[in-house]
Order: sequence, then structure tokens, then C-alpha cells
Amino acid sequence: MENQRPLILVSNDDGIVAKGLSELIKFLRPLGEVVVMTPDGPRSGMSCALTSHEPIHYQLVRKDVGLTVYRCSGTPTDCVKLAFATVLDRKPDLVVGGINHGDNSSTNVHYSGTMGVVIEGCLKGVPSIAFSLCSHQADADFTAAGPYVRDIVHKVLERGLPPLTCLNVNFPDTQDLKGVKICQQAKGQWVNEWENFAHRGDSHYYWLTGEFEDADADNEKNDHWALANGYVAITPTTVDVTAYGLIDELKAWFSDDAVLGE
Amino acid sequence: MENQRPLILVSNDDGIVAKGLSELIKFLRPLGEVVVMTPDGPRSGMSCALTSHEPIHYQLVRKDVGLTVYRCSGTPTDCVKLAFATVLDRKPDLVVGGINHGDNSSTNVHYSGTMGVVIEGCLKGVPSIAFSLCSHQADADFTAAGPYVRDIVHKVLERGLPPLTCLNVNFPDTQDLKGVKICQQAKGQWVNEWENFAHRGDSHYYWLTGEFEDADADNEKNDHWALANGYVAITPTTVDVTAYGLIDELKAWFSDDAVLGE
Repeated sequence: MENQRPLILVSNDDGIVAKGLSELIKFLRPLGEVVVMTPDGPRSGMSCALTSHEPIHYQLVRKDVGLTVYRCSGTPTDCVKLAFATVLDRKPDLVVGGINHGDNSSTNVHYSGTMGVVIEGCLKGVPSIAFSLCSHQADADFTAAGPYVRDIVHKVLERGLPPLTCLNVNFPDTQDLKGVKICQQAKGQWVNEWENFAHRGDSHYYWLTGEFEDADADNEKNDHWALANGYVAITPTTVDVTAYGLIDELKAWFSDDAVLGE
Repeated sequence: MENQRPLILVSNDDGIVAKGLSELIKFLRPLGEVVVMTPDGPRSGMSCALTSHEPIHYQLVRKDVGLTVYRCSGTPTDCVKLAFATVLDRKPDLVVGGINHGDNSSTNVHYSGTMGVVIEGCLKGVPSIAFSLCSHQADADFTAAGPYVRDIVHKVLERGLPPLTCLNVNFPDTQDLKGVKICQQAKGQWVNEWENFAHRGDSHYYWLTGEFEDADADNEKNDHWALANGYVAITPTTVDVTAYGLIDELKAWFSDDAVLGE
């Protein structure tokens, strides 16, 4: 029965015409019923942004056996929220973001619209996976990623994921993948982030660019290391961002402050 | 010497004319040299979004003793990145976001542009604090928050914060504050998130709205509980979102998958 197949909601941040999206759909169709609600244009770097100051809308683009595609005027996170409220007739079994054109490992997790899709799925209590390839090329080659995408999705459909956790999966840009590494988020920061152009008069404008400085580049536990060394990096990711280790120290900071509460 | 005073970078997501920003500046000026780089209009719900598809720019708005204000065409996160690259002559001692008009506790941490400011400050290795008040009113009353803002900022300037951690501070909308609670992020989800309006023909448009359902409303450890009960909620927050507890289980999932790496 078709409606017993897993229901998979897909979105991305590169928009509806991105090759990474059509490749992902191709990889996922054998595994379940696929519903796509995805931005009508590029929304890279949108993080978990919401559209709160204007209305959004969506349109049906394609309806086929096992595949329905909608485009949406909102952000990646809007797409997930709106799909749950409108076009899905039941809670999906899986939310998938990607395949992103570009690396979402390390601290990029905070800026990524692909992760915006997946964090929203996770907050809604659905197992969720982000897939990204370390290439910004419009014609990037996703071939080698295919068997991994299918294997990871199959495992998650079968076993689920614990509450409040999701997967951030990144592929190096090579057809010679060395296998999977389970990783932690590399620490580091972006530097030289703005290209400065002279404009009229004394004014300037600034385009975002930058280089990532890995604070601990030789650490084999890190996703950034795994990618640099040809491995598929799976970084389990939490949406509970409480810094539990700091709670007791902060309690001590405020133990004498009863006066503020009088 | 003025340039030995702490250097405090301020931004927000409600934009340069928000009352919460001017109140925050008033509270902070006695504590250090304040530089403001803030969006030229509302950017609520922008999370850690970046502007990557167009250039951004900034202008000086005000220069006074101990206070310099710039407005910027970008997102809250852009504002922090651009300030570091342009107007700051040294690494700031503190990055502060707010005071937001609206609750950024619980899962709102993921959508908040105020937290976008603070996560960026934290990623750049600077102690960072977000302040928010649970009122969306343009004329919200921030009076009672003042002594708490000053006390918390004073403590953080004195003691610092551990790497990769920042503070998410929320005030209930009351002048009768009961004191500080050190909290964890409440779990739950937004429901009834879209208001649906008929448009021309068969089409519709959707405005974001919603109600937060606390999954564990009676848990006194949660920021959502603290706010509902009149306390200032301080939720220590990490930018390392690795789900460390899931690493061993995932390693077991992939232990037999050597074939994928061949």
C-alpha cells in the first residue's frame, strides 16, 4: 500500500532548481513517498530564519506517483513549518535537507539554511538529516554520495533518532570516499570575512566572503578533519543548546543577589 | 583613560529605532565604551542568517563621548561580523544583543536574531549576552530590567565566560521581578503557526503566528517556567551543538559498513 511507505519531507536552501535537490529526490524516491516544499530561489546562509514581517505563499509544481513538489516564497524553516500545516496529511517519518551545494560542517552549522530545515524537523519531533557536499559548483557531482544517502536514510527510518537530536552529514568533494566518520563539530572561526568595494563618494559596500580557521585542525574527531581527509562526516547535532556545565557556576555568581529580588 | 574602559559591542534585531536598544545603551554606558552596529530596520526571527547574495553597507549615525552608533543594511549576524572587520579598533570585551521586544527563551533561541548577535560574538571568542523582555509592545517598560542588566554585565566583564558559551537572559513583562533563576532551555514546540488568508482565485497567503506548547510546563528548571513565575531567566547557551551522547551509538550503526568505504 503506497500510504504505508515512509513519508519523507524534503527541503533545501539552494532553491528549487538546485542540482543537489534533484539528486537528493532521485536518491530518496526508492525509499518512500517524497513531498518537497522548497524555496523558490536561493536562501543560502539563512540559518533558522523565519519570515515574520510579510506573508508567504506556495504553489504545486509537480505531482507524480510517490513525488509531490511545491515551491514556497519563504525561508527553508518557513518551508518546513508551512508543509506541516498545509500539504502533509500526516506527520512525516523523516525530514531531509539538501543536498546542499557547500560545506555545512564545523561552525557553519549555525548559518546553514539546510540545517534550518533539519533543526525545524527535529523541533517538531521528526527524525531529521541534513546532507551537504563541499562544493559550491552548480554542476557539482553528487554520484558518490548516493549510496551513503540511501544507507543513512534507511538506517534512520529503521532505528529513529533520540529526541532533540538530528544528523548533519557532509561529503567531501571527491568520488573516492573513504567511508563514514562519526564526528564532533570542529571549533574555529571565519576570518577575512568581507570584501570591501568603493562606492560613490566616500562610501563602501561589503560582500561576504572569508576563510575558515580551524582552531584544532589535527583533531581526528572533528568533522572538518574528516572532510579534509576524504571521509563522509556525520556530526550528531542537538537542538538543546543549554550549556549544562555552566549552570552550577552561574548559580554561585548569583547566590548573594537576593537583594535584586526584594 | 577612556580607552582602558571595557569596549562593548551592541546590536539587536528590532532595528535602530527600537526602544529596547536605547534602553540597553542607557544601561550600558556607565559600564564601558559602547559601539552600536545595528540593523536599519526590523530583523526579528532572523536567527544567525547572513547576507550572502547581495552587498551590505553601514553609516555612522551618532558619535558622542563613550558612544558611537552605526546602522547597517544587513542582518544582526552581519552587523557583528561587519563591526569586527571595520569600526572596532580592538577586540571588544563584550558583545550584547537586545534588549529584544519579545521572549527568546525555550526553542525561540533557534529563531532569534538577538541570539544571532550573541552566537556570533561567542564564535569570535568574546563573552556575549542576549537580553530580551517578554513583551512585543513598542513602548514596553524596561525599567525593572535595568539593575539586572547592569549586574549581569558587570559580572561577565569581571569573570568572563567559558569558551563556546554565552548567556540568553529573558525578563518577564512585569515590574515586580522575583530575582534570577539559572535555567535550562524549555523543550516544546510551536503549534497553529500560520494564519491563512484567501487571496485572488484559489490562492492563499500565510502569516506566521502560533502558540508555544511547553512539553514540560511544570519543570522549575526551565526558562519558560521561570518567566511564567516572575523570575529573570538566565539560560547558559553553547555554540557547540554536537550531540556527544549519540556518538557511540552512531559508531555502532556504521561498524559493518566498511564496504561503503572500499
